[in-house]
Amino acid sequence: MGADLGLLIGKMSNSTLATSEYDSVVNMNIFVALLCACIVIGHLLEESRWMNESITALVIGLCTGAIILLTSGGTNSHLFVFSEDLFFIYLLPPIIFNAGFQVKKKQFFRNFMTIVLFGAVGTAISFTIISFGAINIFKRMNVGSLDLGDFLAIGAILSATDSVCTLQVLNQDETPLLYSLVFGEGVVNDATSVVIFNAVQNFDLSRITTSEAFNLIGNFFYLFVTSTFLGVGAGLLSAYVIKRLYFGRHSTDREVAIMILMAYLSYMLAELFYLSGILTVFFCGIVMSHYTWHNVTEKSRVTTKHAFATLSFISELFIFLYVGMDALDIEKWSFVQDSPGKSVGVSSILLGLVMVGRACFVFPLSYLSNLTKNRHEKITGAQQVLIWWAGLMRGAVSMALAYNQFTRSGHTKLRGNAIMITSTITVVLFSTVVFGLMTKPLVRLLLPPSKNMSRMASSEPTSPKSFIVPLLGNGRDPEAELIQNGSALCPSSLRVLLSTPSHTVHYYWRKFDDAIMRPVFGGRGFVPYFPGTPTEQSDHNLIPKEDNN
Amino acid sequence: MGADLGLLIGKMSNSTLATSEYDSVVNMNIFVALLCACIVIGHLLEESRWMNESITALVIGLCTGAIILLTSGGTNSHLFVFSEDLFFIYLLPPIIFNAGFQVKKKQFFRNFMTIVLFGAVGTAISFTIISFGAINIFKRMNVGSLDLGDFLAIGAILSATDSVCTLQVLNQDETPLLYSLVFGEGVVNDATSVVIFNAVQNFDLSRITTSEAFNLIGNFFYLFVTSTFLGVGAGLLSAYVIKRLYFGRHSTDREVAIMILMAYLSYMLAELFYLSGILTVFFCGIVMSHYTWHNVTEKSRVTTKHAFATLSFISELFIFLYVGMDALDIEKWSFVQDSPGKSVGVSSILLGLVMVGRACFVFPLSYLSNLTKNRHEKITGAQQVLIWWAGLMRGAVSMALAYNQFTRSGHTKLRGNAIMITSTITVVLFSTVVFGLMTKPLVRLLLPPSKNMSRMASSEPTSPKSFIVPLLGNGRDPEAELIQNGSALCPSSLRVLLSTPSHTVHYYWRKFDDAIMRPVFGGRGFVPYFPGTPTEQSDHNLIPKEDNN
Repeated sequence: MGADLGLLIGKMSNSTLATSEYDSVVNMNIFVALLCACIVIGHLLEESRWMNESITALVIGLCTGAIILLTSGGTNSHLFVFSEDLFFIYLLPPIIFNAGFQVKKKQFFRNFMTIVLFGAVGTAISFTIISFGAINIFKRMNVGSLDLGDFLAIGAILSATDSVCTLQVLNQDETPLLYSLVFGEGVVNDATSVVIFNAVQNFDLSRITTSEAFNLIGNFFYLFVTSTFLGVGAGLLSAYVIKRLYFGRHSTDREVAIMILMAYLSYMLAELFYLSGILTVFFCGIVMSHYTWHNVTEKSRVTTKHAFATLSFISELFIFLYVGMDALDIEKWSFVQDSPGKSVGVSSILLGLVMVGRACFVFPLSYLSNLTKNRHEKITGAQQVLIWWAGLMRGAVSMALAYNQFTRSGHTKLRGNAIMITSTITVVLFSTVVFGLMTKPLVRLLLPPSKNMSRMASSEPTSPKSFIVPLLGNGRDPEAELIQNGSALCPSSLRVLLSTPSHTVHYYWRKFDDAIMRPVFGGRGFVPYFPGTPTEQSDHNLIPKEDNN
Repeated sequence: MGADLGLLIGKMSNSTLATSEYDSVVNMNIFVALLCACIVIGHLLEESRWMNESITALVIGLCTGAIILLTSGGTNSHLFVFSEDLFFIYLLPPIIFNAGFQVKKKQFFRNFMTIVLFGAVGTAISFTIISFGAINIFKRMNVGSLDLGDFLAIGAILSATDSVCTLQVLNQDETPLLYSLVFGEGVVNDATSVVIFNAVQNFDLSRITTSEAFNLIGNFFYLFVTSTFLGVGAGLLSAYVIKRLYFGRHSTDREVAIMILMAYLSYMLAELFYLSGILTVFFCGIVMSHYTWHNVTEKSRVTTKHAFATLSFISELFIFLYVGMDALDIEKWSFVQDSPGKSVGVSSILLGLVMVGRACFVFPLSYLSNLTKNRHEKITGAQQVLIWWAGLMRGAVSMALAYNQFTRSGHTKLRGNAIMITSTITVVLFSTVVFGLMTKPLVRLLLPPSKNMSRMASSEPTSPKSFIVPLLGNGRDPEAELIQNGSALCPSSLRVLLSTPSHTVHYYWRKFDDAIMRPVFGGRGFVPYFPGTPTEQSDHNLIPKEDNN
């Protein structure tokens, strides 16, 4: 087919370009081989209670960086220049989409208000503390020429939890409450970051008025609501199109392709309208798993579930390997070689600010959140410590943002900027490796299996059962009861239902979902309304166990 | 998580970059939306006997290009600049890998010698005719300053069949012989193209000696054998690693990820060693479907089968949409506006040369190939016409190569080069649309269903059965018989086996496969040798029908 011909012509007709093109082929080979190595080593270390795949990738990346540094005589440490586009346009969307696609929806929406509180108010508190701490401490330390904008950017960069790291250290099945709180917070604070950044650009933060504060809050809600609606809309559109057009046919490739493309389109549309792409693609994933996934053929279901997980897995490995490799970038470190003490000092101060900033919102906001909850649903002290700890990690997002703020196309010539970059790298490496390694043992220590199980129970479907079972008068699955006997519910139970607002919301949502949404958009409850369609029927019967959402 | 923050900082800190970055977001949105539209329209037109998805994408691309041209006031027609890297590094490998992964292996290897004959000798004949035709005709036509290298490049560019187009118009299930011959030829001639290009660079083709000719033939075999071995090696390594490490466990993501990464690594390694990446990744796909695919869990099997097909499907759509959009690139057409007649003339001559060049090897080589075959396996006249016709399409590969040869980073200032580019575009569009549209009806005309079925039968598993059934003395599946009773085969039948060489090769291959390869690398026949492994056993039982390979 003459494909290599093209490469060969390219290589030979332009010999200066040839070297760099060949080098990039060499680099891609090394990188893909390293990814394979990460998978194999990650598998071999799977039984370990300390390691996880992301730390393996990070360590392999660091080792490779060191080897490249040694072989190139100290001139170079990475295979590619860090590209923000690569990160935000290609690697991040599949990870967040998959998180939405696989999230336990019931758990997520039960804690929805707490998640939004953490993601919005919490991030704002953390941003304020880190920024003002940095301004006050670094101005006395002579770290080079940094203006107010740089300090605020440091606050914005380090105030946000890295969802990708959280996915690696918290297990959705073992600690569902922690997972949904910390990961959900990471998704919501994406919208907060956009609002904070706009505020930094447009408002004079030193003397903020009440109306401006309300304006900021209004901005946040506008972004949050529009981003969510865009994601939900894209998900519903995909469900409708697949239900309408592919009904009863078996064009697996088209189904899977249109799911991937619609999800990606939702992310790009959000970028187009300056919304939060992360929020959008996360909600698109949730809606797709609730409706679209049930409208496709059985083979497409297996394929999408595992293909999305694999895409996300490769993207995560890619990011950690890359961050590890990039951490040794000699150009930035050469600036701080003459004052290693100062670099260590700045990194420690930033790390301390991150920890203080997070503590200042996790414990007060948990207290606030507990006030609205009944005894069984409160966030315990041990859980609060874990929420604080698991959210301390800063990852590739922080590094990408630091590169963006403090370099011009990957290079920096200013000492202050170089110190900020190396400090961010130090915070990222330290927090990912140390906090990451400690999270699993800490979960076991603070929530020992027996207690852990009871904790889980208090936030799992058994918890609502304890309220609904007496009021339904039998021991069957409460959710199924609500669906089947919803309209026959005895009036005396309404008072109890109203006293547990999240269950009431869930009950009315199920009624709305069954009456209006599912007949139009398909989904799991869709089949009983159209008993005459053999394809859907047989598809439905093929699913042996229904997942807990 | 602050992801948008990065994009926003990028947009605001550098306002000149901001516009182009925002434009690229707009363009990506349009492009992804168009891909969705292609899928939906392709689905709606599925019943049509004329259209196929690639032509739909091409037409949508052309329309979009026209709309962009009108709205931009005639200054611009495409969303992106055509990027060779995008094409050869990202879009082509999944298509060719999937073709190898899904190919009917028995059919492919039965016609292996014919395929190599077409791909190697045929492409060389076609290259010679097109090049010398172009030299003799265009020198008299005053088409601008083109040297000998340009004419030889035109020959190389237009002598190669586009496998991607072939995949679209020929159906593996309806016309297996045609599919394996024409598509296989497209894969093999990739190696030929590399050899021809090297020859153009290093030898004086006008006075070639016998030793140089042998050198060329030696080069071809070296490239062919090393590329094949690299692909087979990568496939076997993946099979061994998965069988050895993941045996009996269920880490679906890792299995799928390592299959994808190993396949891609084989392609990139081939590029690294200046081999034929197409051949390598094609054979890697074949080996992976024969061994690796059987070693993974049932869920991974469904996932890989459909995920690879989907990736390939999206890549194909991407290419055709892109070619359609790029065809209206105003910069190149403006050079030929003053002499439209000449452009039409050049295009028609090139199209004629392509048709003549292909006719000059399809019919003689089919005759040669028929001499070695028995009555039931001969390629009939109608099939020869279809092989000639279906291989006439030139596609995205030709366009990418033409851009590479006749432009510098997507732009051209020379009239001769512009004419060559526009003529290549015309040949690509005309051959894809007209020949593509005509192929399906032509297949029905020349091989009517009843006759078609008998043709199929003569080249399908029923054909070997007619030889093996009498010699085995019963009517059971001959392949299963060969596996089970292989060693008990009565000696008197060996003479018959030897008289049908391809079946003999197949028989010894099965013996070798069962005795040595499968115990090491797994694969379908692997289970009976380890009856004590419950996981493999249950996996094996889950496959209801064994595919025909």
